[in-house]
Amino acid sequence: MMTAGADIAENVLELARRRGFIWHSYEIYGGVAGFYDYGPLGTLLKRNIENAFRNLYVIDEGFYEIETPNISPKDVFAASHHLECFADEVVRCERCGSFFKRDDISKCECGGTLVFAGSFNLMFRTHIGVQTTAAGSRGEAYLRPETAQGIFVDFPRLLKFNRDKLPFGIIQIGKAFRNEISPRQSLIRLREFTLAEAEIFVEPSQKNCHPRFDEVRDRMLRLLPASSSDNEVSEKSHSASTSSESASATNTAQSSTAEHSSAEEISISVGEAVEKGIISHQYLGYYIAKTHEFLTSIGIPAHRLRFRQHRKDEMAHYASDCWDAEFLSMKYGWIEIVGIADRGDYDLSAHASHSNQNMSVYISDTAKKTRKKVIPHVIEPSYGIDRIIYAVLECAYHEENVGKDIRRVLKLKKHIAPITAAVLPLLNREELKNKAKEVFNILRSNNIFAVYDESGSIGRRYRRQDEIGTPFCITIDHETLENSTVTVRYRDTMDQIRIHIDEILNFLRREAVGDECACERDEMND
Amino acid sequence: MMTAGADIAENVLELARRRGFIWHSYEIYGGVAGFYDYGPLGTLLKRNIENAFRNLYVIDEGFYEIETPNISPKDVFAASHHLECFADEVVRCERCGSFFKRDDISKCECGGTLVFAGSFNLMFRTHIGVQTTAAGSRGEAYLRPETAQGIFVDFPRLLKFNRDKLPFGIIQIGKAFRNEISPRQSLIRLREFTLAEAEIFVEPSQKNCHPRFDEVRDRMLRLLPASSSDNEVSEKSHSASTSSESASATNTAQSSTAEHSSAEEISISVGEAVEKGIISHQYLGYYIAKTHEFLTSIGIPAHRLRFRQHRKDEMAHYASDCWDAEFLSMKYGWIEIVGIADRGDYDLSAHASHSNQNMSVYISDTAKKTRKKVIPHVIEPSYGIDRIIYAVLECAYHEENVGKDIRRVLKLKKHIAPITAAVLPLLNREELKNKAKEVFNILRSNNIFAVYDESGSIGRRYRRQDEIGTPFCITIDHETLENSTVTVRYRDTMDQIRIHIDEILNFLRREAVGDECACERDEMND
Repeated sequence: MMTAGADIAENVLELARRRGFIWHSYEIYGGVAGFYDYGPLGTLLKRNIENAFRNLYVIDEGFYEIETPNISPKDVFAASHHLECFADEVVRCERCGSFFKRDDISKCECGGTLVFAGSFNLMFRTHIGVQTTAAGSRGEAYLRPETAQGIFVDFPRLLKFNRDKLPFGIIQIGKAFRNEISPRQSLIRLREFTLAEAEIFVEPSQKNCHPRFDEVRDRMLRLLPASSSDNEVSEKSHSASTSSESASATNTAQSSTAEHSSAEEISISVGEAVEKGIISHQYLGYYIAKTHEFLTSIGIPAHRLRFRQHRKDEMAHYASDCWDAEFLSMKYGWIEIVGIADRGDYDLSAHASHSNQNMSVYISDTAKKTRKKVIPHVIEPSYGIDRIIYAVLECAYHEENVGKDIRRVLKLKKHIAPITAAVLPLLNREELKNKAKEVFNILRSNNIFAVYDESGSIGRRYRRQDEIGTPFCITIDHETLENSTVTVRYRDTMDQIRIHIDEILNFLRREAVGDECACERDEMND
Repeated sequence: MMTAGADIAENVLELARRRGFIWHSYEIYGGVAGFYDYGPLGTLLKRNIENAFRNLYVIDEGFYEIETPNISPKDVFAASHHLECFADEVVRCERCGSFFKRDDISKCECGGTLVFAGSFNLMFRTHIGVQTTAAGSRGEAYLRPETAQGIFVDFPRLLKFNRDKLPFGIIQIGKAFRNEISPRQSLIRLREFTLAEAEIFVEPSQKNCHPRFDEVRDRMLRLLPASSSDNEVSEKSHSASTSSESASATNTAQSSTAEHSSAEEISISVGEAVEKGIISHQYLGYYIAKTHEFLTSIGIPAHRLRFRQHRKDEMAHYASDCWDAEFLSMKYGWIEIVGIADRGDYDLSAHASHSNQNMSVYISDTAKKTRKKVIPHVIEPSYGIDRIIYAVLECAYHEENVGKDIRRVLKLKKHIAPITAAVLPLLNREELKNKAKEVFNILRSNNIFAVYDESGSIGRRYRRQDEIGTPFCITIDHETLENSTVTVRYRDTMDQIRIHIDEILNFLRREAVGDECACERDEMND
């Protein structure tokens, strides 16, 4: 029987485990909550998604990637206020001693009463060098809870690399760590996870002038703005801003958001949303639209995506405005998969003040022949790669009745599927196997990720490839030996066509590219 | 004046810093010893080298990549004996209190006397979840000192993924962490660094039968075997081996090594080295040869490479045999950049015993119709990516007299150069700039990593590209507007040729591929 609703999600995870996508870490030792491994197919999928991110931000946007350490000294997070603010309130069960995040639970599983146990900083702590009581906190260090700080502390170097000009963008793809109190939601709440972040440094007065805004203006979005009443509750007071441009830009953004007064979902083009002040400025609008483009291009349909604005009282301590891309999961409901924040000058100002280094940029006004010093604002699209992978798997998973059987198939977009083509000899005969290996070698040496499989009936091998999302099966049969043609089976339709061996490479290249374009077109009109 | 010898290395690092390859981490806070950032160009170079590693081990060898966490619970390193064995002896200066690794130093810089301060485990320690005194060591965790353990603990899953068959290989590319006592050698001794490791699981009795050994048999290597007297000093006694195959295979390896009696460098083909027992078996020989192929293909000339066998008393606690690929640095002398170890069944046996899980494989002997249970042996090529990057930069760096000036140029292999082509308008004129941007867009949209640069004299722009190793500069001049031809300047020779715009893509593709092949050919005969 086919499965429906929330149970589907269990089947997705079961398939992901069985087929080598995602495993509990340290399973032989009973597992550790909040840690997952990517198996062989999961890692291929993850690399493809990370490279799709690079294609968007490095190739298309022209940003550069950098790589900074996971371990950071205390100074960095003292400056960024993570030491002070990046904490959850914790309750402890009086009976069994278990800890929980205060908001997550009202009663312990064992029935015990919960008592408030204090505030718990979510950063993993460690120590650099030999630790002695004499040394005090020298050497105190933390695992980064976001990759962004590594970019901010390099800002003087990065600005020079960009020849002292704004705007520019820098990305980082890497691990981040949050010592969650009691994580229990597979890939959704991990203690160690992958972030792909872009930090775009922009002159504050230019936030409403994105040079490529026209390219995204007409993209339709589903928005859930915070209501004005939500946003008026508490004027954020933590800002370490030292620049007058910054403060005024932030205020402008907030008052224009306030024009919009109810927390209802709306469908609107990004151009109109910015004009009406629902989205504060073009830079936020542009990266919201680009994120929409990215997520739909890797297979999350537009009707399962929305962008929700943070209420003032839920915003991270560094953000002056933030929109989450949310994915509608059959299991978890709406979950955040990307956050697009306006961090203002919060971080650069904080590091400037804590390190006593210059983090400002000289901006020339050639008309007035003047020059002024500003601290750039930062727009940050921050992608939770693990959650995106979960979303992609949930969307790709299909169960279909085929005769008496259920066919389980991952309809992954071709450019992110772990394996592009499987090469299969129809029967277990030497001459077919040799020919199949020849074809397999041609594909591999032309950088098409292919597998060769000879074991089991052809039907069983097709099903195996369906389950792991391989878009094409290429079968070698006796006709291949006669006229050098093979069958190509399409994963989604199970249709088969016959093509010449010499055509395989061109066929695969054409089909894979075709898919990527078609998908974007479809989703635009979803 | 041109620089020579060890000073060259300082110039390499200065260029690397100035041009955005490598920066001290947390520079605005005074830096933290043992941590480095990869800037925009360094990250491009690093990705290219990591992908070259993938091309060798994933595409060519057919291995799969997995990704496991940096944070590991105590159990893993209790089993692997890292908790017990992965430590340095430490001395402390009585006067200033500084700590040093015992072997590194005989007197403190301040003149103070050094006293033995105990043994210091090199793993960074942290804690998973809320830490309480009541919980004891529950939650105790460490940052991995190698990526390998993540592969070993997944062995049951990986074996199943490979349908219970040996041999198979798994790679992991990721961060590793070692809390060095007093690191002071830039990229050579880092506290956080990138390892690219392959773990090849093989039936112990098959270690001398690598299926592709013939392909590497004739590769000439420079070997420095441990002398037999070195190896007879101490029979390793720590082995957690439970399999008789393992113990006997290890013994065989050692006695055959013992045939060779002096610690002198020899030049020998890998085939002969294995036949004579200098290299214990074909599996070690094959991956030594593949490593030689890899290192020369990315630009480390064969005359600056050798393979040195570990003496028994310097071998890691898990290894039964180990060869280091060493690079001859102008600054540091011979330094290890890759280790190729025979780990025997040490790790799998250790985890089997500690977790009480099955780590053995059933091997069928179809002739005798018998079936036996064995714990596979592990051959491990482990690449220190940061040291390899340093080696590549040192080898690529050249200073040349050009007129009165010194030309600094990174002669990086084309397939690992951060940027493939720079597109330059000859003069600062609108029509030239527009045409140049057109060309730039064609390259980018065809996945050729190009930059556009219009600022400064053309000579200065050429020098800038020379310094960052860009193999080709494409210049747009007035002739381009007339007949659609451009000049292409070769980085290494500074020769210029003129080609049609429509030819650029093919030209770049042909030249880049040509380089990779040519280099392999050259190095083979070096």
